[in-house]
Amino acid sequence: MISAPKIASFQPPRRVLMGPGPSDVPQRILDAMARPTIGHLDPRFVDLMEEIKTMLRYAFQTENALTFPLSAPGSAGMEMCFVNLVEPGDKVIVCVNGVFGGRMLENVKRSGGVPLVVEDAWGAPVDTAKVEAAFAAHPDAKLLAFVHAETSTGAQSDAAELSRIAQRRGALTIMDCVTSLGGTPVRIDAWGIDAAYSGSQKCLSCTPGLSPVTFSEKAIARIKTRKTPVQSWFLDLNLVLGYWQSAGKRTYHHTAPVNPMYGLHEALVMLCEEGLEQAWQRHARNHEKLKAGLEALGLKFVVAEPYRLPQLNAVSIPEGVDDAAVRSRLLNEFNLEIGAGLGALAGKVWRIGLMGYASRAENVEFCVNALSKLLPARRSAAA
Amino acid sequence: MISAPKIASFQPPRRVLMGPGPSDVPQRILDAMARPTIGHLDPRFVDLMEEIKTMLRYAFQTENALTFPLSAPGSAGMEMCFVNLVEPGDKVIVCVNGVFGGRMLENVKRSGGVPLVVEDAWGAPVDTAKVEAAFAAHPDAKLLAFVHAETSTGAQSDAAELSRIAQRRGALTIMDCVTSLGGTPVRIDAWGIDAAYSGSQKCLSCTPGLSPVTFSEKAIARIKTRKTPVQSWFLDLNLVLGYWQSAGKRTYHHTAPVNPMYGLHEALVMLCEEGLEQAWQRHARNHEKLKAGLEALGLKFVVAEPYRLPQLNAVSIPEGVDDAAVRSRLLNEFNLEIGAGLGALAGKVWRIGLMGYASRAENVEFCVNALSKLLPARRSAAA
Repeated sequence: MISAPKIASFQPPRRVLMGPGPSDVPQRILDAMARPTIGHLDPRFVDLMEEIKTMLRYAFQTENALTFPLSAPGSAGMEMCFVNLVEPGDKVIVCVNGVFGGRMLENVKRSGGVPLVVEDAWGAPVDTAKVEAAFAAHPDAKLLAFVHAETSTGAQSDAAELSRIAQRRGALTIMDCVTSLGGTPVRIDAWGIDAAYSGSQKCLSCTPGLSPVTFSEKAIARIKTRKTPVQSWFLDLNLVLGYWQSAGKRTYHHTAPVNPMYGLHEALVMLCEEGLEQAWQRHARNHEKLKAGLEALGLKFVVAEPYRLPQLNAVSIPEGVDDAAVRSRLLNEFNLEIGAGLGALAGKVWRIGLMGYASRAENVEFCVNALSKLLPARRSAAA
Repeated sequence: MISAPKIASFQPPRRVLMGPGPSDVPQRILDAMARPTIGHLDPRFVDLMEEIKTMLRYAFQTENALTFPLSAPGSAGMEMCFVNLVEPGDKVIVCVNGVFGGRMLENVKRSGGVPLVVEDAWGAPVDTAKVEAAFAAHPDAKLLAFVHAETSTGAQSDAAELSRIAQRRGALTIMDCVTSLGGTPVRIDAWGIDAAYSGSQKCLSCTPGLSPVTFSEKAIARIKTRKTPVQSWFLDLNLVLGYWQSAGKRTYHHTAPVNPMYGLHEALVMLCEEGLEQAWQRHARNHEKLKAGLEALGLKFVVAEPYRLPQLNAVSIPEGVDDAAVRSRLLNEFNLEIGAGLGALAGKVWRIGLMGYASRAENVEFCVNALSKLLPARRSAAA
């Protein structure tokens, strides 16, 4: 027998989470996570699932029946969209302007699709003219995939216009709204998006681990008429459909993460109480406040003003400043987490999140104040 | 705008969970779930991950470096094993004696493998002679896949002998130990198992949603020398390896479910405190007590005595008894959940779980007492 290690219970520090997610989780949501576990086939759990579906439809602004939280993180939500909607040989126009567009491209390949890449600079939005041109060159493209809010750069793309282009071409759309849902307007039905996925740990302020997804009737029709089986058992919507469909007819698929669902339910109750439009306004307001503070410190935004995500602020690290040392001091001296750069922007930018419950005036002040103590005094032109 | 639904916070009832999982979750684990969320790249979270890996190695009785909790339920853990270890055209001997063996078969197909099915009756263990014969007929089979503890029937198979057969043939093994881990002996290294997956919500008594997995050096070597890419991005061990490997070198893969990891950590601390052998003995002891009580009520076990899982007791529903009505009364009048039959056994059996924290003398008494009130009085031969 290998003998038992002696390890104590884990006591996490209390951090202020202002990175790219997870964001600050309100105590109400943490408390909900600790409620007694019930069975995943319990009639009360079925009630919970129905309520979560209703509230997610509100968050996504959709009437889509097939709207539910996948029992896995956002990257699995992304994969669910691709493995169900792409068949081997399908042409997919995929927009890459950051890490998550790149991950979409990887998913197209692994699903057997033929990717047609529309590339834009990191920090820029997707160029709709390039997407038009890609469809003109490949009128038989079956799908358009893009990231609404690029978490790696803080740039927001014009989802309404991108979806319009795809619709005119008879193509379906897959949209990543991991970082936008609950923070900036996401309008699945008004825009005509066919498949979208998000994450629980960004502007919904829940703990990480669940991926809200939604699929249009057109998407479901395409999945039901596939010529080849979906390559993943766990993510096959033909099977998941039976699990998440209305009470009474449910078939066993997998054991849902019961307590995390309690947390997501509470997060959505809080969103409904505040109201989506109020949440969007709050995110915009606190972004303005943060922007003023960061600019006063001499920090420059990576993304041009019209495309900036209020909930994810990427700023260039000033010349001569040690990236890791500053983040480490923020964490150790202030218990404040901000995000490092990712991919092409690693070491070059910080990503300051104001997502969900973290989007509060006190967080903005705390962060600007902490940074002001660690950054060299500004030699401003005005001085 | 679709307007906000008015939904109240969810207050689950307090159930006694004696089905096939989730099982009763101790308050200590629920409390751990509600601790403050920290970032998934926080150095303290890295510490947590390392401790979880160490404790999982103890639970699995393995020195395997690649031992970690997958951020998704057990059915995703199953898929992870197959999509990484099966290449298109590989012959896989897959043992089917219940629902989960059937799911393994589905995974072999979707991974492009050529399944060679060894079938046994539901309620029987896997017949090792049939597996020998399958290898004799197909000496080029690359993998043997079997379920150690069939959750759908309550039968345990001889994992040591099955693994020995595969090793003699130079084949790797994939073992489902979802229901056995922490309840009956699982000895990955002593048995020479190459890939195994479990679930958090069975004998570990954690909330559902995570799947502990472990892979041998031989399994990793096979994955690293694949000729074709792994079809899943989320489950690709080549990528996950970078995420879960030792601190310092970690690369971002996905956002881990932070709070559920707190829960799993606490569940493993409790297992280490009790000791694996003590936990196995407790499961055996309470099974004997339950067996006596159920037999006194005239209930008959589905599985022959030598193959019975102490943690999952499948009994035939007596003639003339309404399955759904009894389970519904147990739930509504006693707050007691037991499991229904699954697949071929639906409507024919009940599955009474004594898993992890649910394996307590008081639970046994409570369940036997509740059943005695709902079942017709026994017309025993002795009366």
